[in-house]
Amino acid sequence: MSKKVIIIAPHPDDEILGVGGTIARLSDEGAEVYVIIATKGYPPLFDEESINIGRREALEAHKFLKVKETFFLSFPAANLDSIPSREINDEFAEIFKSIKPEIIFIPFNGDIHIDHQRIFLSALVAARPNNLEFPLFIYAYETLSETNWNAPYLTPNFVPNLFIDISQYLDKKIEAFKKYKSQIKEFPNERSVESLKMLAMLRGSTVGCYAAEAFVLVRGFYKSEKKIL
Amino acid sequence: MSKKVIIIAPHPDDEILGVGGTIARLSDEGAEVYVIIATKGYPPLFDEESINIGRREALEAHKFLKVKETFFLSFPAANLDSIPSREINDEFAEIFKSIKPEIIFIPFNGDIHIDHQRIFLSALVAARPNNLEFPLFIYAYETLSETNWNAPYLTPNFVPNLFIDISQYLDKKIEAFKKYKSQIKEFPNERSVESLKMLAMLRGSTVGCYAAEAFVLVRGFYKSEKKIL
Amino acid sequence: MSKKVIIIAPHPDDEILGVGGTIARLSDEGAEVYVIIATKGYPPLFDEESINIGRREALEAHKFLKVKETFFLSFPAANLDSIPSREINDEFAEIFKSIKPEIIFIPFNGDIHIDHQRIFLSALVAARPNNLEFPLFIYAYETLSETNWNAPYLTPNFVPNLFIDISQYLDKKIEAFKKYKSQIKEFPNERSVESLKMLAMLRGSTVGCYAAEAFVLVRGFYKSEKKIL
Amino acid sequence: MSKKVIIIAPHPDDEILGVGGTIARLSDEGAEVYVIIATKGYPPLFDEESINIGRREALEAHKFLKVKETFFLSFPAANLDSIPSREINDEFAEIFKSIKPEIIFIPFNGDIHIDHQRIFLSALVAARPNNLEFPLFIYAYETLSETNWNAPYLTPNFVPNLFIDISQYLDKKIEAFKKYKSQIKEFPNERSVESLKMLAMLRGSTVGCYAAEAFVLVRGFYKSEKKIL
Amino acid sequence: MSKKVIIIAPHPDDEILGVGGTIARLSDEGAEVYVIIATKGYPPLFDEESINIGRREALEAHKFLKVKETFFLSFPAANLDSIPSREINDEFAEIFKSIKPEIIFIPFNGDIHIDHQRIFLSALVAARPNNLEFPLFIYAYETLSETNWNAPYLTPNFVPNLFIDISQYLDKKIEAFKKYKSQIKEFPNERSVESLKMLAMLRGSTVGCYAAEAFVLVRGFYKSEKKIL
Amino acid sequence: MSKKVIIIAPHPDDEILGVGGTIARLSDEGAEVYVIIATKGYPPLFDEESINIGRREALEAHKFLKVKETFFLSFPAANLDSIPSREINDEFAEIFKSIKPEIIFIPFNGDIHIDHQRIFLSALVAARPNNLEFPLFIYAYETLSETNWNAPYLTPNFVPNLFIDISQYLDKKIEAFKKYKSQIKEFPNERSVESLKMLAMLRGSTVGCYAAEAFVLVRGFYKSEKKIL
Repeated sequence: MSKKVIIIAPHPDDEILGVGGTIARLSDEGAEVYVIIATKGYPPLFDEESINIGRREALEAHKFLKVKETFFLSFPAANLDSIPSREINDEFAEIFKSIKPEIIFIPFNGDIHIDHQRIFLSALVAARPNNLEFPLFIYAYETLSETNWNAPYLTPNFVPNLFIDISQYLDKKIEAFKKYKSQIKEFPNERSVESLKMLAMLRGSTVGCYAAEAFVLVRGFYKSEKKIL
Repeated sequence: MSKKVIIIAPHPDDEILGVGGTIARLSDEGAEVYVIIATKGYPPLFDEESINIGRREALEAHKFLKVKETFFLSFPAANLDSIPSREINDEFAEIFKSIKPEIIFIPFNGDIHIDHQRIFLSALVAARPNNLEFPLFIYAYETLSETNWNAPYLTPNFVPNLFIDISQYLDKKIEAFKKYKSQIKEFPNERSVESLKMLAMLRGSTVGCYAAEAFVLVRGFYKSEKKIL
Repeated sequence: MSKKVIIIAPHPDDEILGVGGTIARLSDEGAEVYVIIATKGYPPLFDEESINIGRREALEAHKFLKVKETFFLSFPAANLDSIPSREINDEFAEIFKSIKPEIIFIPFNGDIHIDHQRIFLSALVAARPNNLEFPLFIYAYETLSETNWNAPYLTPNFVPNLFIDISQYLDKKIEAFKKYKSQIKEFPNERSVESLKMLAMLRGSTVGCYAAEAFVLVRGFYKSEKKIL
Repeated sequence: MSKKVIIIAPHPDDEILGVGGTIARLSDEGAEVYVIIATKGYPPLFDEESINIGRREALEAHKFLKVKETFFLSFPAANLDSIPSREINDEFAEIFKSIKPEIIFIPFNGDIHIDHQRIFLSALVAARPNNLEFPLFIYAYETLSETNWNAPYLTPNFVPNLFIDISQYLDKKIEAFKKYKSQIKEFPNERSVESLKMLAMLRGSTVGCYAAEAFVLVRGFYKSEKKIL
Repeated sequence: MSKKVIIIAPHPDDEILGVGGTIARLSDEGAEVYVIIATKGYPPLFDEESINIGRREALEAHKFLKVKETFFLSFPAANLDSIPSREINDEFAEIFKSIKPEIIFIPFNGDIHIDHQRIFLSALVAARPNNLEFPLFIYAYETLSETNWNAPYLTPNFVPNLFIDISQYLDKKIEAFKKYKSQIKEFPNERSVESLKMLAMLRGSTVGCYAAEAFVLVRGFYKSEKKIL
Repeated sequence: MSKKVIIIAPHPDDEILGVGGTIARLSDEGAEVYVIIATKGYPPLFDEESINIGRREALEAHKFLKVKETFFLSFPAANLDSIPSREINDEFAEIFKSIKPEIIFIPFNGDIHIDHQRIFLSALVAARPNNLEFPLFIYAYETLSETNWNAPYLTPNFVPNLFIDISQYLDKKIEAFKKYKSQIKEFPNERSVESLKMLAMLRGSTVGCYAAEAFVLVRGFYKSEKKIL
């Protein structure tokens, strides 16, 4: 099995909010972790400086978590509904084909941000099980300040069925988040250090550990080469 | 309007876990708050002492939160599926008829404990809008160590659409919970002071305040006598 | 609290079909009611005359219901899927920021008309609870000849959880609807006076009053300044 | 094909509320219509007189609609959750086996009355497609004062996907309902002549006819002997 | 009644995968069957030769199944999200108006291919019951290699409620599929002869016959001219 | 980690129908597999002989698949709704506590058989993550002739998100099923060798392998001792 993992983040910092602790744990367990930042800000919506800052912060955070490589794609942030979904599908598919990840982590299709919704769908198309090397496990992660703001019972709701213990990695997750200085808000804003920490601890207490990250399994496949236990 | 509120708790302490801060706030705002503890422990499942302790703790907590009256019903705890639902319906209906509450808070029908599921349904029957004085608002509350343990996407999932700011009452909620000495567990158990506090703060940050309790609106009715704004 | 309310209508007359009676009641209760007509017809899809008629009828109906102000936006009717959602989000957000409504009423995301679906999502983005003055209550309303024609169990279905008694305002609702001479159809068309009246009376009888309008609560928030009862 | 139809009513009058017009139409089209009244009232919950009245009214209404035969079962009304479901399954199965209906109409499993919920499930078990003569079409019908009072989005919600035009039979449906003198309430009670009539007219206008009854298709099967068109 | 049926296929061969056996049966039962191939491949995404081959294969398969007429529309394959939905709606509506089908079969809105999703929605708009001659029955069909690859519980899931016995037509379905030489893959690919055959036999065994095609009823309407039995 | 697995079967043969191939594969991979047959037939519903046959067949099949131990519980088959759920919970909990399985496989809560529904819920209660050694992974399996016969969109529907390749174990699964001579039916009955084989092959082709078993993940937990990859 490949021991390779890809996390797809619509915008810089989503990968930490949703998967930061797991990235650290996976690195420690010997996996190769790749991150795709799917969009890029463009003027006038975003100014050049903030775009550069975002990328620099991403690289710092990823280095800290021992991410092996970061892919910066060029799809226009906050405007993905103006891009044919086929183009996004194809770009993801190409990366999947070259990296051959065993697991992909993707944003949740019920997040209120349309970029998240589109990326979920495109990642799923790119990961279709119609070839020999599609990703075996697809997990959707939650994103504070996106996942909780959509419409209860009317849009897809995040109810996690997969928990990963990050008790020993919560500090690293928080540290990585702090690299994104430009994104951090003060509590009670959801995108604050406090909220992020409490979410991890609550997700942990649901399954009886100190801290966890929680996911929805979209599809898993124990092919014959991969032991079930 | 009646300014009266009833919270139905399957077992002592559920009312604090789910609605403790709101009870304190409602008392402060001049409402009359009533609590129904729907079940009673019976030997050999529960020993006499623990039953008495539970009730004593409930009364302490309720007094602290200025609950006006506590009803202790006698349905057998952890055994509600052996009781005809009609009997539970009727007992609730009688209390509703005598108190005439404007709001009722009930446990969530997706909680893993069958007592919670049954009480949800019976409360709904008792609150049917087929008479002149049914409760105008029905809110389902969440219960740590019950609500998060059912089956994602297969049983009803709690996705809150109604938030009540309890920033000024979080301390009181925690204080009231501590009256239930016999029920408190150590973190990372969900039924711990830390989990309860973090849940309230996270629910708060979802809507931008320091602490909140979160509910699912089951039914609301602005009758002509009640102003919408 | 602001005592201000905004109703967002994809096209002229949706605001009456879904919220007409409640608008009249709110005006009577002292609230300031604003209406946003989100789209505009453009040739060749719509001819100039019908566009002007629609706006004139809207103003008449709104005046009759004591609407304080009507905003006519310029998004292309029946073509909202060709507009980047971000543009719609932003325009709504600006109005929310200037009016600071306590309640917004929006079309339902399961309506068969794609304009309704898009507006629901954009209104939700514009109402995100990430600032100090977002709308506290978001209600989705139903629209005869849109809401009942989507796919049962496959697209979001309208099942109301919030009822507003309009017994004393049903006549006004019907009167306001009649201002939209160009839109009224003969029964059994759903967009007829008879259907509209019967829907209100049936929604009323569900909760035991003569007539009501029914909504789905998307999100509610009792912040500390707003009494729960 | 058998040209036989069974309607299962939990209590007398449900069959008229949900299927009255269709019964009349089916009789006119040459079908044999059978009704099962699944429960019986027992003292002290129900007094002897009211029980007799209910049955007498049922027979009158059924005669008026040309029902071929009415089966009165003896399961205890309002107490079906104290009966093993297997017993109800078996009794239905036996009738199905003897009548061999092509269509069955059953109450909806989201109705608030537990008798309705149980009967839905038992009818489904009895209609399992594991023999040669199971019912080909299973429709769930709606019941005013039951179907609209359960929990939106938390219990199964009635969203009809099958409409039957009863424009020429609405009068008969109302007439049949009036035979149930003991059950009729004054509008705005849902169980009133006015509500029943308006519901039929609204269901009709959804599909462009004067009056209709609406159903959820649970399962349909065009076996080779039955033409699709 | 019209005895006319339309099947809408996003791409050539979808109509056989989902409805091939039923087409054969309908032809045999005397119905007129029409097929709409909604999209066309365009270079550079598709090369001219493969486009021509696809159309030629379609015509062969349709001739074999006695399809009365095939409509080839020109919407760009794999790119429907770049086309205003209104344009697709209108083209479908025009064909419906000219053919006046009693039944339409459409792809499922939970299929992973965005073309399928868009066509489902556009067909539904075109079939709105707001005129005198809309299609009475709308069935959504399943498509191997599309329907099973979307997100369980997060996007609409295909759970059939309508089965059509094709025991006597399974061979014809397979034969028709084989006309699409360019599309057939080797088992275990889902788009293989073996998978198609096994799906039909499994759907059949669910209702106790040798082979069936399975559908979700979106809407059905027994108008007064159409006998229920 | 424990390398222990428990399969809970409501009745003998359910464990083979749903998990037979995976049992064989797990045994081969070195896991210890335990089976719980939760119910027992009682006269007069079942005759003594058939009860004994069922148990003998179970032991033969389990021996063939190298099941380490089979637990025969005594709850009354086809009558689980007459047993307090707490009793079932407790018996499962005790076995979990003694075996300490890492994975449990349980029937699906949407199966039409009430025994399956009850056992799903009781297993979930017994597996609550409120102690140190709860099962880390809970998978719900499908059962031919139960899972496909409930109500589409109205009761929980089985949409698998977890696939286990059993290409090398399909023959063993079929062989094990054949030990249940008394249960096998002729195709097209769903409980036939042919249906079972085709279901496995179709589930396989969905993920591109020759044969698979498919499950719904109810909850998974990668605790710190268990590597994610």
